Amino acid sequence: MSRTVSIAAIPGDGIGPEVVAEALKVLHAAAPDDVDFAITEFELGAGRYLETGDVLPDDELERIKQHDAIVLGAVGGVPGDPRLVGANIERGLLLKLRFDLDHYVNLRPTVLFPGAVSPLAHPGEVDFVVVREGTEGAYVGNGGSMRTGTPHEVATEVSLNTAYGVERLVRYAFQLATTRRSKLTLVHKTNVLTNAGALWKRLTDAVAAEYPTVAVDYLHIDAATIFFVTDPARFDVIVTDNLFGDILTDLAGAISGGIGLAASGNINPDGSAPSMFEPVHGSAPDIAGQQKADPTAAILSIALLLDHLGYADSAARVSDAVRADLASRAETGAPRRTSETGDAIVALLTS
Amino acid sequence: MSRTVSIAAIPGDGIGPEVVAEALKVLHAAAPDDVDFAITEFELGAGRYLETGDVLPDDELERIKQHDAIVLGAVGGVPGDPRLVGANIERGLLLKLRFDLDHYVNLRPTVLFPGAVSPLAHPGEVDFVVVREGTEGAYVGNGGSMRTGTPHEVATEVSLNTAYGVERLVRYAFQLATTRRSKLTLVHKTNVLTNAGALWKRLTDAVAAEYPTVAVDYLHIDAATIFFVTDPARFDVIVTDNLFGDILTDLAGAISGGIGLAASGNINPDGSAPSMFEPVHGSAPDIAGQQKADPTAAILSIALLLDHLGYADSAARVSDAVRADLASRAETGAPRRTSETGDAIVALLTS
Ligand SMILES: CC(C)[C@H](C(=O)O)[C@@H](O)C(=O)O
Ligand SMILES: CC(C)[C@H](C(=O)O)[C@@H](O)C(=O)O
Repeated sequence: MSRTVSIAAIPGDGIGPEVVAEALKVLHAAAPDDVDFAITEFELGAGRYLETGDVLPDDELERIKQHDAIVLGAVGGVPGDPRLVGANIERGLLLKLRFDLDHYVNLRPTVLFPGAVSPLAHPGEVDFVVVREGTEGAYVGNGGSMRTGTPHEVATEVSLNTAYGVERLVRYAFQLATTRRSKLTLVHKTNVLTNAGALWKRLTDAVAAEYPTVAVDYLHIDAATIFFVTDPARFDVIVTDNLFGDILTDLAGAISGGIGLAASGNINPDGSAPSMFEPVHGSAPDIAGQQKADPTAAILSIALLLDHLGYADSAARVSDAVRADLASRAETGAPRRTSETGDAIVALLTS
Repeated sequence: MSRTVSIAAIPGDGIGPEVVAEALKVLHAAAPDDVDFAITEFELGAGRYLETGDVLPDDELERIKQHDAIVLGAVGGVPGDPRLVGANIERGLLLKLRFDLDHYVNLRPTVLFPGAVSPLAHPGEVDFVVVREGTEGAYVGNGGSMRTGTPHEVATEVSLNTAYGVERLVRYAFQLATTRRSKLTLVHKTNVLTNAGALWKRLTDAVAAEYPTVAVDYLHIDAATIFFVTDPARFDVIVTDNLFGDILTDLAGAISGGIGLAASGNINPDGSAPSMFEPVHGSAPDIAGQQKADPTAAILSIALLLDHLGYADSAARVSDAVRADLASRAETGAPRRTSETGDAIVALLTS
């Protein structure tokens, strides 16, 4: 008796299809014996928009929601392409999925694997997770402009934060901290963004009282970026808002060997909609179709997917294979085609 | 005939008084022969607030405005001090000065001086300036909360951006670029903050047309942090908003030898009010009064002050002395008292 798990794959634009192809190879190779991953592809992204004018049609969104999980490559066209002005694939597709599927936990682990090269001279043992809020903050699209295009234009962006949205995220972060080194750092800018800051601080303090074994720390976003380059080993779990989390996780990717290795999960912990797994990197149209992209971030996102679906052993096997592959790559040092990395990891999984 | 230039000094809290003392020594030593710097001290900050309840009384603000320039050390008490809850020295004092005196250019140069130690393994030639907006954006204090303190709280922060405010800043940045390596990078998050982003992009493009010799580039804030650690040498002039500028300049300080070296000028280019010069670092109450703080950032801020007041030669002499001092410190490597660094730089200036 085998169980079928349905996966919606959105390869997307640029290097997206190349890295997703490798990620799916690895998914099949790492699947438990009694589990069948059934993949349905959705052709969405800038390419689809340019062909048909569609960004994310409602009926496709509905069909995507019927799956057990989503794998996304990367979406977005060539920067500055005039045909994409006003379309905003990021807001209309990527953020729409995160918001509509209530992906309130944007989970972004950072590990400096042996063999990966950090730009830091003395990175130390880097192993932390950013728990980024995914459905609120400055990302809600609540802004506008008046006298647009004139010398008197005024443009606004509103960051919306709710106790409901912040508390559920903070609770997830504390729970995660208990499974790790039991340290949690709230990152915000409470001295300037006093209203949102007070809300985040109050709820972090409140939930902290329920987790007496977790050591809690606070850093302003500016100070946090300093520690990312001077002492990243100090972090375990970082909890922060949507915008600060965006910034910190690109920096986190950079210090831990490049965002070619940075994986992420857009998690709906309640299970009311499928969670979505994607590399942190973008579509990199400049190297698309050349088999130059490193699929490791997409493959590590598969480990997050497996873990989320309850296949912790399979997830660990994928992480271990990536770890082994990075170490052996560091020895040979030869450049790799995208598919070679996928093949190497599949070989490690099946050997 | 000597000219008198009036300086309002706000030593502030923590290490502020120690670093300002050295900065003022250097100011006097570097003054042109026919210029007299007359210093008036204003005791403002968390310390004053705790003693008297005052943050920035109106009449003191008026007196500060009568000066030719302001030197500020650092303000802010011990983090978490319950007596400071609700006072917000940052908003009521530091930001009030920036906003009231229309310091719309927050100028933050980053140079990796020979002898300074970067946490990056291969930093390259780091020499860029962040031109941070100082009077708008998420810093305007336009937010609020409802059902505050309840499980139904909603808290907002509004980023306000005006064509007037953005254009004058962008223009300053382009002008500055022509005096440097003629490269300008706009940093924003146009794909998510579409309203403010469009305004910043439109005005940067418009002003760019007047500066055909300046090469213009755009980066999302998240991508910019990656380049700060992988290739900071690519930057010349960066123009960005108040919040992104705050984040980028702490990171810039960190990669270029620590924020003990990072200087800043809060500039009112129109001269309608005095400009203010301050180190980027905070009050560091944990090491206050111990002569442990490095006054170099405060001293480099004096170079910015001299330059702003039209004493370019004196400014260059201060920078050169700092450069020489950092190089000689790197050779001996012995820890220094705050006053020793000030004395060493004065000695270099007067020898
Ligand atoms: C593409 C963009 C909208 C997105 C974000 O800002 O969240 C990306 O930077 C990320 O971090 O996943
Ligand atoms: C103290 C704080 C309000 C200030 C800011 O955010 O501007 C500081 O971080 C800075 O960069 O000067």
